[in-house]
Amino acid sequence: MKTEKLTPEHIEKKLSDLTEWTLREGKLYRSFAFENFVEAFAFMTKVALLAETMDHHPEWRNVYNRVEIYLVTHDVDGLSDLDFTLASRIDALL
Amino acid sequence: MKTEKLTPEHIEKKLSDLTEWTLREGKLYRSFAFENFVEAFAFMTKVALLAETMDHHPEWRNVYNRVEIYLVTHDVDGLSDLDFTLASRIDALL
Repeated sequence: MKTEKLTPEHIEKKLSDLTEWTLREGKLYRSFAFENFVEAFAFMTKVALLAETMDHHPEWRNVYNRVEIYLVTHDVDGLSDLDFTLASRIDALL
Repeated sequence: MKTEKLTPEHIEKKLSDLTEWTLREGKLYRSFAFENFVEAFAFMTKVALLAETMDHHPEWRNVYNRVEIYLVTHDVDGLSDLDFTLASRIDALL
């Protein structure tokens, strides 16, 4: 998978396909709410396995039933295709 | 376990037994660094099971090999014995 830094035009185009994600601090951001902590952590476990398989890991935060995920590609100091692929695979887990 | 709000004097005394934890934003805080993401998430899984068993859950953040944990008791709007017990049990996982 390409890890080139995407241009703002590319990002805007790709974002239009990921309706639940927004840009925050230059990263792809989405917040998730679950029934309870067990459901939230079950989701996090799936994301963890996915991320490790892709060797691309989220910055994320959990408080009880809520999970916040930020995706960015540090190697290119911006967003790459990796972030958008991981985002759509995370969406597919739900 | 008691969930009374601890006084600043109690907190100071209890903190002296938890040398790796500090107060941050009124919460018990500790940062952990692991070899890699797999080790970090393995640790998080253990903490998750512990937290669910205690019905007391952390606010936490993970970026690759780093895990940051904040403990607070929302029911009392401060720190309670629950936070210190969970902190020491987390330490025992390492």
